[in-house]
Amino acid sequence: MDNFSYVAPTRYLFGRGVENEVGRLAAEAGWSRVMVVYGQGSAVRSGLLSRVTASLSQSGVPFIQFGGIAPNPTAAPVREAIVMARRACVDGIIAVGGGSVIDSAKAIAAGALYDGDFWDFYIGAATVTDAIPVGVVLTIPAAGSEGSGNSVITNEETGQKISIRTDKALRPVFALLNPELTMTLPQAQTAAGVADMMAHIIERYLTTTPDVEVTDRLSEGLLTAIMTSARRVIANPNDYEARANIMWSGTLAHNGICGCGRREDWTSHGLEHVLSALYGVTHGAGLAVVFPAWITYMADRLPAKPAQLGRRVFGVTATDDREAALATAAALRAFFAELNLPLTLGDLGITDPDFAKFTADFHRDKGNPYRGYWTMTPTDTEAVYRLMV
Amino acid sequence: MDNFSYVAPTRYLFGRGVENEVGRLAAEAGWSRVMVVYGQGSAVRSGLLSRVTASLSQSGVPFIQFGGIAPNPTAAPVREAIVMARRACVDGIIAVGGGSVIDSAKAIAAGALYDGDFWDFYIGAATVTDAIPVGVVLTIPAAGSEGSGNSVITNEETGQKISIRTDKALRPVFALLNPELTMTLPQAQTAAGVADMMAHIIERYLTTTPDVEVTDRLSEGLLTAIMTSARRVIANPNDYEARANIMWSGTLAHNGICGCGRREDWTSHGLEHVLSALYGVTHGAGLAVVFPAWITYMADRLPAKPAQLGRRVFGVTATDDREAALATAAALRAFFAELNLPLTLGDLGITDPDFAKFTADFHRDKGNPYRGYWTMTPTDTEAVYRLMV
Repeated sequence: MDNFSYVAPTRYLFGRGVENEVGRLAAEAGWSRVMVVYGQGSAVRSGLLSRVTASLSQSGVPFIQFGGIAPNPTAAPVREAIVMARRACVDGIIAVGGGSVIDSAKAIAAGALYDGDFWDFYIGAATVTDAIPVGVVLTIPAAGSEGSGNSVITNEETGQKISIRTDKALRPVFALLNPELTMTLPQAQTAAGVADMMAHIIERYLTTTPDVEVTDRLSEGLLTAIMTSARRVIANPNDYEARANIMWSGTLAHNGICGCGRREDWTSHGLEHVLSALYGVTHGAGLAVVFPAWITYMADRLPAKPAQLGRRVFGVTATDDREAALATAAALRAFFAELNLPLTLGDLGITDPDFAKFTADFHRDKGNPYRGYWTMTPTDTEAVYRLMV
Repeated sequence: MDNFSYVAPTRYLFGRGVENEVGRLAAEAGWSRVMVVYGQGSAVRSGLLSRVTASLSQSGVPFIQFGGIAPNPTAAPVREAIVMARRACVDGIIAVGGGSVIDSAKAIAAGALYDGDFWDFYIGAATVTDAIPVGVVLTIPAAGSEGSGNSVITNEETGQKISIRTDKALRPVFALLNPELTMTLPQAQTAAGVADMMAHIIERYLTTTPDVEVTDRLSEGLLTAIMTSARRVIANPNDYEARANIMWSGTLAHNGICGCGRREDWTSHGLEHVLSALYGVTHGAGLAVVFPAWITYMADRLPAKPAQLGRRVFGVTATDDREAALATAAALRAFFAELNLPLTLGDLGITDPDFAKFTADFHRDKGNPYRGYWTMTPTDTEAVYRLMV
C-alpha cells in the first residue's frame, strides 16, 4: 500500500426531491450571486431548470444562467462563461447536468479567478489552487464529476481532450443526487454511464502496487453492485432502486476512494479521449470498446490484476493468469453487449481508423494522467487500437 | 435505498512518517494555540508525543498538553480539559491516540464552546452545532473516530456510556494515519480493534431497508479485507501491509460510507456499552461476545440480513435463512476465536452476571442511537445477554 493523501469534502444529498434543496444550500454557503450552468435543453424541457431557479429565488439567491454546454465540452463556451462570471461577480456556480456540464462549470470556476487563459491548467502551464465554489444538481450518473476534483475539456482548436485532477480545489461543495431525474435517460445513455463508472473503478484497480486488499475489495464490491443494478435497469428502466444504486455507485467510482493507496492506470481513458476528441464519441461508449481490447493486450504482458478482477467479479475460474485475463476481457465485453453498447470501432461509426494518428495523438497529450499499470510505447498503443476492430 | 445526507470532509494523510506533518497541517489550518490530548503514556514512551510537539514547534504553532485519558474515557478529565482549553484560548485540538483520546478531544472541543456542561450533549439536552477543530494522530485502528462525527463518553457518576453522532461538527479536519505506529500494539488490542471495526460495519449492514446493494457490497468487501489482513497480522505482527489495510479499513468502517442509504442497527453496541460502563470491558472485546449472541437471537426472528452476510462473506452455503444466520453467528465466533478474543461473559471476567441490571441499563440510555434492525423489548434484551454465557 502506497502512502496517500485523501480529502473528499463534498456534501451529498441523495434521494427523491433533493434538487429542491439547492436554494437552501446556496444560501447557507453564503453565495450572493450564482451562475447556473446547464446543457442543451433537456433540463429546460423537463422542468428541472425551473425548479432549480425557483428554489434559488425562494432562498433569495440572485442568479444568472449559462446554457448550451455540449457533450465532450469544448473550450469556447468556457471562455465565454468566464467573461460573464467575472462581469456578474459570481461567487458560486451551480451545474445542472451531467459530466460535461459539471466539468465546464469547474473550468469556469477556476478560470474566472485566473489571469491567463483557463486552458493553461489543462496543458500543465498553470495549477488550479483556487476556484469559485461549485454545487451540482446531477442528471446523468456516469462521469462522477459531482464528487471528484477532476475536469475534462476538449480544445476544439488543437483537437486535444485533456483531463486535470485537483486534490480539493475543484471538488464540488455540494452535490444533489435524485435518482428520479435519471429515469428518463435513453437506454444508450444509461449504458454508456455504466461503462464509464466501471472504467473509473477498473482504471484504479489495474495497479502494480501490491497489498491494496481493502481498496481492491471495495472496488470489486462496487463493480458487482453496478452490474447487478444495470441489469435491473435494462429490464425495467423505471426501477427506482436500481437507478439509485447506479447513481451512488457512479459517485463512489470516481471520488477517489477506489484509488487510495495505489498507483492508478488511466491508459484506457487516454486511448478513449483520442477517439472522443476526433469523432465526438460518447465517452462511456468509447470506453466499452477500449477497455476489453486493453485488457486483452495486457493478458500477454501483465495479466495478474485483470486475472484477479475476473476471478473475484466475473466468475472466471481459470487458474492460469493469462487465460484468466483473457476471460476477464471476454466477460467484460459480454456484459457491455448485454447493455447494447458498441463493441468495436465500427460500432462507434469509425469505419476507416487511422491507427497512426490515434497513436500519435495518444502520445502527444502529456498533460493527461497516464501513470501506468503498463508503460505504453507507440507500438503498444497502435496494437491496442488494432484490437478494437 | 433511503434518502440520505452524507459529508465526510476529513483530510487523511496515510503512510509512513505522516505524523511529522502535524505541524504543517496545524499551521495551514491557521491555529494559533493548540491543545495536544493524549492517553496514559504510551505515546510518551514511544517518542511519538515528542515528534508531534517537535513538529508543532518547527511550524511555529504554540501548544499546551493534556494527558492521562483512560480507555472507556470518562467525564471528569473532559471537564478539566475544557477549563484549560478556555483559559488558554485554544483554537485547535490535536488528539494523539486511539478512540478514547479522540472521543475525549471531541467532547472537549464541543464543550469548550458551550455555556453549560458538556454532558448535556450526550443525554440529548443540547445539540453540538459548533466545536473547536480537531486533528488526529492515530495510534490504534479500532474506533474509527478519526473519520467519524461521533464521540462516546462514560459518565462515571451515573454509570452511563453514551454515544453521540454529529453530521459534520465533530468530524476531525485532518487525520494522520501511520500504520507503523500500530506495529507494537499488543495482540489483544489489535484483535479488539478488528472486532470493533467489523462491528461498525455489521451494525450498519443489519438493516430493514431493501435494495442497498451498493452499500451492502462495499461493506462485504471491507469485512473480507479486514479478515484477510487480521489473519496476516496474527501470523506476523510486523506485517506493515496487513497493518496498513487494517488501519484504513478501520477508518472506512466508521466514516459513514457503510451506512449511506439505509436505517442502521447499533443494538449490539448498546448491549456492549452496558458491559463497558459496569466492568470497564475493552469495547472491541465486549463486541466479540455480544455480536454472535445477537445474530444467533436474530436467526429466529429476522434472519435475512445475517444470512446474506454469511453467504457473501463467511462462505455459508445453507439455503434456509435461519440456518444460514446461525452459521453466520458461528463463523463470526470462530473468527473471533482465531484472534483469541473472549467469546463469553466469563471470558470477559464477568462471572456473576446480573441480567436484570444489564437489561435495565440498556433500556435506560435513550440517548444511544438504537435505531433498530429489530425493536428490542426487555425480554429480547435479557434473552440476548443470556446467550453470552
